[in-house]
Amino acid sequence: MQLYNTATFIGCDTAYEESKIVLFGAPFDGTCSYRPGSRFAPPKIRPDSYGLETYSLFLDKDITESAIHDAGDLEIPFGDTVKALGVIEEYADELFAAGKKPLMIGGEHLVSLPVIKAASQKYPNLHIVHFDAHTDLRTEYMGVSLSHASVIRKAWDILGDGRIFQFGIRSGMKEEFDWAMKEGHTLLCPFDCSRLDEAVAAIGNAPVYLTIDVDVLDPSLLSGTGTPEPGGITFREMLQALRTISGLSIIGADVVELAPDYDLSGVSTATVSKLLREVMLIL
Amino acid sequence: MQLYNTATFIGCDTAYEESKIVLFGAPFDGTCSYRPGSRFAPPKIRPDSYGLETYSLFLDKDITESAIHDAGDLEIPFGDTVKALGVIEEYADELFAAGKKPLMIGGEHLVSLPVIKAASQKYPNLHIVHFDAHTDLRTEYMGVSLSHASVIRKAWDILGDGRIFQFGIRSGMKEEFDWAMKEGHTLLCPFDCSRLDEAVAAIGNAPVYLTIDVDVLDPSLLSGTGTPEPGGITFREMLQALRTISGLSIIGADVVELAPDYDLSGVSTATVSKLLREVMLIL
Amino acid sequence: MQLYNTATFIGCDTAYEESKIVLFGAPFDGTCSYRPGSRFAPPKIRPDSYGLETYSLFLDKDITESAIHDAGDLEIPFGDTVKALGVIEEYADELFAAGKKPLMIGGEHLVSLPVIKAASQKYPNLHIVHFDAHTDLRTEYMGVSLSHASVIRKAWDILGDGRIFQFGIRSGMKEEFDWAMKEGHTLLCPFDCSRLDEAVAAIGNAPVYLTIDVDVLDPSLLSGTGTPEPGGITFREMLQALRTISGLSIIGADVVELAPDYDLSGVSTATVSKLLREVMLIL
Amino acid sequence: MQLYNTATFIGCDTAYEESKIVLFGAPFDGTCSYRPGSRFAPPKIRPDSYGLETYSLFLDKDITESAIHDAGDLEIPFGDTVKALGVIEEYADELFAAGKKPLMIGGEHLVSLPVIKAASQKYPNLHIVHFDAHTDLRTEYMGVSLSHASVIRKAWDILGDGRIFQFGIRSGMKEEFDWAMKEGHTLLCPFDCSRLDEAVAAIGNAPVYLTIDVDVLDPSLLSGTGTPEPGGITFREMLQALRTISGLSIIGADVVELAPDYDLSGVSTATVSKLLREVMLIL
Amino acid sequence: MQLYNTATFIGCDTAYEESKIVLFGAPFDGTCSYRPGSRFAPPKIRPDSYGLETYSLFLDKDITESAIHDAGDLEIPFGDTVKALGVIEEYADELFAAGKKPLMIGGEHLVSLPVIKAASQKYPNLHIVHFDAHTDLRTEYMGVSLSHASVIRKAWDILGDGRIFQFGIRSGMKEEFDWAMKEGHTLLCPFDCSRLDEAVAAIGNAPVYLTIDVDVLDPSLLSGTGTPEPGGITFREMLQALRTISGLSIIGADVVELAPDYDLSGVSTATVSKLLREVMLIL
Amino acid sequence: MQLYNTATFIGCDTAYEESKIVLFGAPFDGTCSYRPGSRFAPPKIRPDSYGLETYSLFLDKDITESAIHDAGDLEIPFGDTVKALGVIEEYADELFAAGKKPLMIGGEHLVSLPVIKAASQKYPNLHIVHFDAHTDLRTEYMGVSLSHASVIRKAWDILGDGRIFQFGIRSGMKEEFDWAMKEGHTLLCPFDCSRLDEAVAAIGNAPVYLTIDVDVLDPSLLSGTGTPEPGGITFREMLQALRTISGLSIIGADVVELAPDYDLSGVSTATVSKLLREVMLIL
Repeated sequence: MQLYNTATFIGCDTAYEESKIVLFGAPFDGTCSYRPGSRFAPPKIRPDSYGLETYSLFLDKDITESAIHDAGDLEIPFGDTVKALGVIEEYADELFAAGKKPLMIGGEHLVSLPVIKAASQKYPNLHIVHFDAHTDLRTEYMGVSLSHASVIRKAWDILGDGRIFQFGIRSGMKEEFDWAMKEGHTLLCPFDCSRLDEAVAAIGNAPVYLTIDVDVLDPSLLSGTGTPEPGGITFREMLQALRTISGLSIIGADVVELAPDYDLSGVSTATVSKLLREVMLIL
Repeated sequence: MQLYNTATFIGCDTAYEESKIVLFGAPFDGTCSYRPGSRFAPPKIRPDSYGLETYSLFLDKDITESAIHDAGDLEIPFGDTVKALGVIEEYADELFAAGKKPLMIGGEHLVSLPVIKAASQKYPNLHIVHFDAHTDLRTEYMGVSLSHASVIRKAWDILGDGRIFQFGIRSGMKEEFDWAMKEGHTLLCPFDCSRLDEAVAAIGNAPVYLTIDVDVLDPSLLSGTGTPEPGGITFREMLQALRTISGLSIIGADVVELAPDYDLSGVSTATVSKLLREVMLIL
Repeated sequence: MQLYNTATFIGCDTAYEESKIVLFGAPFDGTCSYRPGSRFAPPKIRPDSYGLETYSLFLDKDITESAIHDAGDLEIPFGDTVKALGVIEEYADELFAAGKKPLMIGGEHLVSLPVIKAASQKYPNLHIVHFDAHTDLRTEYMGVSLSHASVIRKAWDILGDGRIFQFGIRSGMKEEFDWAMKEGHTLLCPFDCSRLDEAVAAIGNAPVYLTIDVDVLDPSLLSGTGTPEPGGITFREMLQALRTISGLSIIGADVVELAPDYDLSGVSTATVSKLLREVMLIL
Repeated sequence: MQLYNTATFIGCDTAYEESKIVLFGAPFDGTCSYRPGSRFAPPKIRPDSYGLETYSLFLDKDITESAIHDAGDLEIPFGDTVKALGVIEEYADELFAAGKKPLMIGGEHLVSLPVIKAASQKYPNLHIVHFDAHTDLRTEYMGVSLSHASVIRKAWDILGDGRIFQFGIRSGMKEEFDWAMKEGHTLLCPFDCSRLDEAVAAIGNAPVYLTIDVDVLDPSLLSGTGTPEPGGITFREMLQALRTISGLSIIGADVVELAPDYDLSGVSTATVSKLLREVMLIL
Repeated sequence: MQLYNTATFIGCDTAYEESKIVLFGAPFDGTCSYRPGSRFAPPKIRPDSYGLETYSLFLDKDITESAIHDAGDLEIPFGDTVKALGVIEEYADELFAAGKKPLMIGGEHLVSLPVIKAASQKYPNLHIVHFDAHTDLRTEYMGVSLSHASVIRKAWDILGDGRIFQFGIRSGMKEEFDWAMKEGHTLLCPFDCSRLDEAVAAIGNAPVYLTIDVDVLDPSLLSGTGTPEPGGITFREMLQALRTISGLSIIGADVVELAPDYDLSGVSTATVSKLLREVMLIL
Repeated sequence: MQLYNTATFIGCDTAYEESKIVLFGAPFDGTCSYRPGSRFAPPKIRPDSYGLETYSLFLDKDITESAIHDAGDLEIPFGDTVKALGVIEEYADELFAAGKKPLMIGGEHLVSLPVIKAASQKYPNLHIVHFDAHTDLRTEYMGVSLSHASVIRKAWDILGDGRIFQFGIRSGMKEEFDWAMKEGHTLLCPFDCSRLDEAVAAIGNAPVYLTIDVDVLDPSLLSGTGTPEPGGITFREMLQALRTISGLSIIGADVVELAPDYDLSGVSTATVSKLLREVMLIL
């Protein structure tokens, strides 16, 4: 008799060897200064994904046709950020070397940094499409330089000008906005995704890493996150944005900052499960 | 001294004999495979309805003028689905025989089936207007044919083609959408209510049963439901839809799948209370 | 070594003497007949405000430049409404006498009444801009005349016709709407803020007291309130409305009816914190 | 077909005329200065009582044999304490006049005062047995004399020395304990019920009003109350205490200060339901 | 790189072939008439078990030495009780045939019945040790005979007198207690485990199936269950009871009726995880 | 008019200069591998302390007579453990140099280490009395040596044999218990506080640092903690233990590992507030 368990995201049971996309969790939120809990996102999303269908009416595709392997979660120590990020980078290197596309479930936003580092090794011309409520462009936060609030700035340290495209941003220090918008280090589209076509045109065929901080969505829908910020985009706007970028050469992606325990209704986790499904379908 | 209790929905204290509409609860969620709890909707909605006014500014009407009797809840056994549905059907028969319009509070969506059966006995030309996030068009679910996921398909077994109009649908298996949309067994309007005028024209004067699965609403507002599905319609769209169909010959209605305990804020229950008030006003 | 605490709203640490705006809490909800808990708003908002930035991208201003003093909360007894309102009025008098603009965090809506009284003493030509889901125009509620449900009617008793402008209203008794709209005692804009320009023109340079019942926002975002009412305005509409009235001579303001414990996700408190920041910037 | 509702406490469906005991709710918590919510106890206890059996194994009796009428809840206004207590006193007078024993579900502890007043009119030799974590012996609280913190002191104003017996008390001001214990105005048994036999002997055949503030129970079990106080008695100690006093001439009783919404598990409400059942059986 | 997931109970990673004990989940609560949710126990217990140590100080043993295989959960349909129980019985048969000891995580208490049936086939002299708050001795419940409230009575139908030993029981109908205690069909020890030595002596070397309804524990600790019943045993009493029966020939066991979502603190799940560990160590 | 705020623990408003005891918060939980959230304990305890009386009936003393200054919270960065502990150690040094007794509110248990370090500098003969559910004697945890799971082992590295006395311990690896009990490096009293008199005798007049991990209490009462462990001591046992050690020369203390958000009822926070009050009274 065949038993089941819900430890694998729905529809992601391709063997590692046959897979094109590898889903994995990075349950780390150690630099989060306000409300932690994104460490619980990976183990919570998987069983809740069984409330989904594998078929997306919006994209008219089914993830069972995408050859996805769910590898489980990385074992990440707490209390030593450098060691924690090292674990993630090593695994991302392994996936890129094996020709797989990584799809990472955070964890806090800082977990994107080691994957971006690994990706930029393989793809020197890497671009980043970034959805978020916050700029994440600080140089340090409370004296600590490796922080969720500085992750995109650190990515810029690697990639430089003209490579980073930010959407839905509505919160940050004035200095961060000035650095991005006046000095032009990134293309930063405040409040919404209205300049997404412009980004698609600028990127062309270059390889793209997609990073989605789920707090880009309005907290009416996505209350389960560390720093909810009203005035965000709707789920339909998010889906539309994914469709707009679906022609890009996306070589990896992550969905971060779901902190499921803050939303006892389960809607946030259901929403991120569905978002992950749609991301799988454009990878 | 006259004491009060909150066991009756606000404004629904017409005696059974004088009533035109009979409100009752069907607290059954026994086939629900994911998150149960809609059984608690009827006892929870009544006390919370006292946060409402009886007057609707939107429709400029007051439910105290509608002659509504709140009959309480059916006593439904768990563990035997056929027996459970039998209880509901028997009561619906009784109401139709007495010339009353039933307004049922679910329970899971399967509770609509016995009322539709009873209605189709009295009104052979019955049509159905259906608001939902899900198709509910499966022929069976996990080997069980009487299931919340198959309720509309079972209704079609009774009524046949051209009688069922579905709105707000955004989730289901590809096979279900193909059955409905390509083969044309129902009019299925994906994502929203844009084809509602078309339905109103097609139905004309035929008798209509209205069934609203509250997960048609976006889970940002309606988080208290078994299978939340982001991308739903807003409350204003729902109200507008009710106004659009208010000229039809609606002979009964239900509002199902509120699972109040998943929304600890009480907003879901407040929303369904208000929705029930508006449904009462178009019956 | 300097320790910190979170007992002051972020960015509001100007000394009383140097301040132009004085923020204070009025933790009273003693006439609330349905769901109490707005008494907990002031102590809950302050620590949560540290999830905010002091800079508003929307208004491109920073509250650290606004000379705001956070005075703490009034000590208000429960069980004696007249005494409770007296405490608030006395403090409002003191602030107006000192040339400060009061910015009060409720508490239930009735706490606005003593501040309006004090303001009308200093500014006989006082006007009121009122955002709310409810009319608040009853003459009494369950035999009690000093009630959250009658606060705007009591304000009208002081100010008379042509002075009160109400927005976002979607719930009340028919009599209240008739009194306001047919008899014209207030300008009442149902459902939304579409007539705000009209109000701005009518008010001109007259002094304005701004009172925001947070249930004007849709409960999908603002579930932490006593009487959630679906169909409300979005946060973006609220921000736009604030921008529209930012040229008025606002002499004081309040934000009331946040009941934080009903929204365990913290989104309601985060939203009201951000709303307070924007109100500070137009004062 | 007979429908049911859960608006009556289980097993309490004797008609008023035939009843010996009348159960009613007093949903008032208007003087509560810390955490309100006991107003929600009466409507919450009734549906939850259906998780109980009507039979008590501990007392080997069944409440269906006790002729109890559940009258519903008093309609009590908020914002005017004197008026609120008047409503309760009037109803208690009515019950005593009709020869019924009142069994009141609070509400805050102050609701006991009007019933004690009414009882002392009919039974001049009235004694009180009081279970509580707190002394409730203040003469006023924040300048307000009618307060939940002063209810037993007010009862003493009516009854005088030698009439009040307090058990389980573990919190209060030093002055209150000195007043009770050194000056001997009441028999106050700190922490537990060890002196209960002494009380039973002292009271003899005199009429007794029993008032139970549920926070006498340890908050590990009874977390749903306004002011939880660790170190309380266990449920078994409570049951044993009820058995100890079951031979007294109890002429009325109340169970107050359940604030159900603070205990989302429902255990507090289940516990108070069971406690009410046992109280019914010793009345 | 080795990733982990938390889909296996801690320390239970022996391969099926090498295992002596097989842990599996039976996520069914379809006959539960009051508060469902025990279906969520198996998937919730596993990740939470990682807050445990594998070593028990109380028993001075480690589960990693017990050769336990965690098989996952049975796929059980809802809406057809007979079919659901058939799935469980078939799997229990398979385990007994393979010489494994089943350790089942419920689900509601009815899931014990098919395992008891299967066990009685292999062990005709089967005895049952039963810990519970409730008698579970009804012949039917609301007209349905296969019910969580009748499971022990159904077991008696199979096994007959002298085989069933019940502990901690404190709730039921008078008829059930009379049937058990006066007529002597089972040994029923009310309120506690004081007669456990007597049971151990009576059972001797006979094969024993152990069934623990977690509501035997006091709801102060175990609030996450469908029908909380105050006055239960403590965790230390439970541990002591397990030690008392540890010399019996236990051929299988289950732990049922954890409904984790009712206890948002996670204490109930942590407690049942630890209880499962101790049960593993006496199997 | 004097306003109040609740940013100071009740009764702790002595100025720093006049104070003997300095209360401060160390909101750090960065090495917590399971459930974080103890960072929120300090800001949550203060307002909730106003549900307390300043007078302890158990010890018959009042904290207003103890000259306590509440200094607020340390500003501790996340993501760099060494830097975080440095902030705490520096402040503890400052307090010891000024002749104050520190009373620290955690944060996770690792925050005790820097205070113990600072104390051992001033008091070379320092002893430790430790209440906890867990041994905390690991040498490292997931490759990280500065961990909440190793804090007492690190303290032993400083102090050596015969200085550490552990009570209530009921969970850990076998190796940890063997190290403590067989090798005798600490006096470890499993499960309860029965050997406390022995410790008091052994310590005599030596200076003592008291560290209380609140999970020593049974999770029925104290559910708001990262790793709840059933089978703990009761609040009365805890009070009794404090009385037993009240004659020791306690030179500082801490109360750690309250994670208030896991206990939505507020009972855990109320309990730790009361525990803090009693600790203040024996300092």
